[in-house]
Amino acid sequence: MPAASFIGGDWGTSHLRLFLCDSQLAVLEQRDGPGASRACGAFENILNSLTRQWTERHGELPVILSGMVGSSLGWVQTPYVPCPARPEQIAESCIRLRGGRIRIVPGLSCSNRLGGPDFMRGEETQLLGALRVEPTLSSGRHLVCLPGTHTKWVVLQDAAVQEFLTAPTGEIFATLCSGSTWVPSGSHVREEGISDAFSQGLARIQQTPSPDLLHVLFECRSRRLSGELAAVDTASYLSGMLIGSDAKGALRLLGSSESTQVFVIGTSPLIKLYSLAIAALGGQPNLIDGLAATVAGLGCIQQL
Amino acid sequence: MPAASFIGGDWGTSHLRLFLCDSQLAVLEQRDGPGASRACGAFENILNSLTRQWTERHGELPVILSGMVGSSLGWVQTPYVPCPARPEQIAESCIRLRGGRIRIVPGLSCSNRLGGPDFMRGEETQLLGALRVEPTLSSGRHLVCLPGTHTKWVVLQDAAVQEFLTAPTGEIFATLCSGSTWVPSGSHVREEGISDAFSQGLARIQQTPSPDLLHVLFECRSRRLSGELAAVDTASYLSGMLIGSDAKGALRLLGSSESTQVFVIGTSPLIKLYSLAIAALGGQPNLIDGLAATVAGLGCIQQL
Repeated sequence: MPAASFIGGDWGTSHLRLFLCDSQLAVLEQRDGPGASRACGAFENILNSLTRQWTERHGELPVILSGMVGSSLGWVQTPYVPCPARPEQIAESCIRLRGGRIRIVPGLSCSNRLGGPDFMRGEETQLLGALRVEPTLSSGRHLVCLPGTHTKWVVLQDAAVQEFLTAPTGEIFATLCSGSTWVPSGSHVREEGISDAFSQGLARIQQTPSPDLLHVLFECRSRRLSGELAAVDTASYLSGMLIGSDAKGALRLLGSSESTQVFVIGTSPLIKLYSLAIAALGGQPNLIDGLAATVAGLGCIQQL
Repeated sequence: MPAASFIGGDWGTSHLRLFLCDSQLAVLEQRDGPGASRACGAFENILNSLTRQWTERHGELPVILSGMVGSSLGWVQTPYVPCPARPEQIAESCIRLRGGRIRIVPGLSCSNRLGGPDFMRGEETQLLGALRVEPTLSSGRHLVCLPGTHTKWVVLQDAAVQEFLTAPTGEIFATLCSGSTWVPSGSHVREEGISDAFSQGLARIQQTPSPDLLHVLFECRSRRLSGELAAVDTASYLSGMLIGSDAKGALRLLGSSESTQVFVIGTSPLIKLYSLAIAALGGQPNLIDGLAATVAGLGCIQQL
């Protein structure tokens, strides 16, 4: 049996994923459990019951947990570390429970490029992991995109999280799909492949001189009236407009003139859509697997 | 008894308002009925039953109906008159029913300033009315705003509708209020007065160099986390950002350098919010009562 070194956990709002890892950050086993919003405060019981077999076999192992488990909805509220934040500062700010055996990773805060307060929780762990997985990220300036419900655009500077910017693109898309009159039921973004309608929505944003999102969104409806858009393609067209608008604004605000490379971290089909948008806007997307980044980030905290 | 001259109807998606009018466009009586979406195809029966008393007293009167009654959901589908459209062209394109006694007003279409297909149905009647109510509109170039679920920004040129642009600002606001995690239940925009939070959301958009709506919307959440925004004020802050972004983009796209005047047509509390946004952005709002504009527009069609 390989020597287990620690237990890592990505404990988000809706899911818990626990990993039994060795010292080389290989995942030996995985368990899934309820997210923070459904844990009903029983965080310790859930953790104990899901890890009992591992503990019986390997003894008491260090546990590193990140994500909403450290929020006001979570087990214990961890602070937000202000940016710029170096990996050691993040590791030092973990809240320790049970004699230090369990560590809960803090989130990050910043005043973003537009002067607004901004926050992340969970993505900081993926960023620490990305620095391990992709060693070129550790020096110089790099732009990173973490697509999701609340997409984060992050500037890394010499291995520190310098600043970031949140766009609630995924949440707006989901809300408009379910709540507005624009997107007919039955219109979904394809999981596999990129639909022409996505590319058309993206091209529409590229052509628009400045990101006048409010003034082009109605086209999800008007182009159906004019016969230019099929009802079933509406969700893809909307997705192309939203992701295009997000990427266009973020590249303008945070992109650098020296490098067009953007590291995209994730696992969902969203990373393909963001990569396409980044490439269409002149950037060079570079994918990093989200699961590998999460595990490497939890291991980084364990080893620091 | 004053001499009744015609019956006018504003038959929208959710409401029908019928007006018995004299030849001076004074409303003698009013009746309300179900909108086009709830009429179940029984448009003629609804009209007859609501106007029976009027017909008994005044004989068969001409009827002018505008709004969604002329859409694919309505009584009969009227065409969209392409812009630029003059009042006479709109009147000539009415669909006549029952030997010409009933006329249904067409909508308007255009290729908008951003090159997208655009449509209106119902607002064209208010615009015809505004030309009667506010004679200065009949010559020269004027910018008009009709706030609503789908806000319309319209350029009038020598009494013709030259072009327009739709922003689905009201629908996005309502959808985000009911479907997203940002706006807590219990947070509403005040009907009376303007809340400080609206002004703060508006100021936030004014300060933002270009309308990066997607990259400031998350502040509805992050400013609560940072303690800068009370939960109860979130809807007003969101409203300020959305209306500010709509007005800023529309003034940039359609505003003229010669005149900063913007005619705002409507009845809802929205016209106060739009007026505030227009004034904050350097425009000069000039209110036109929406009901008076509707009745005058129906009368204009009757007399043309």
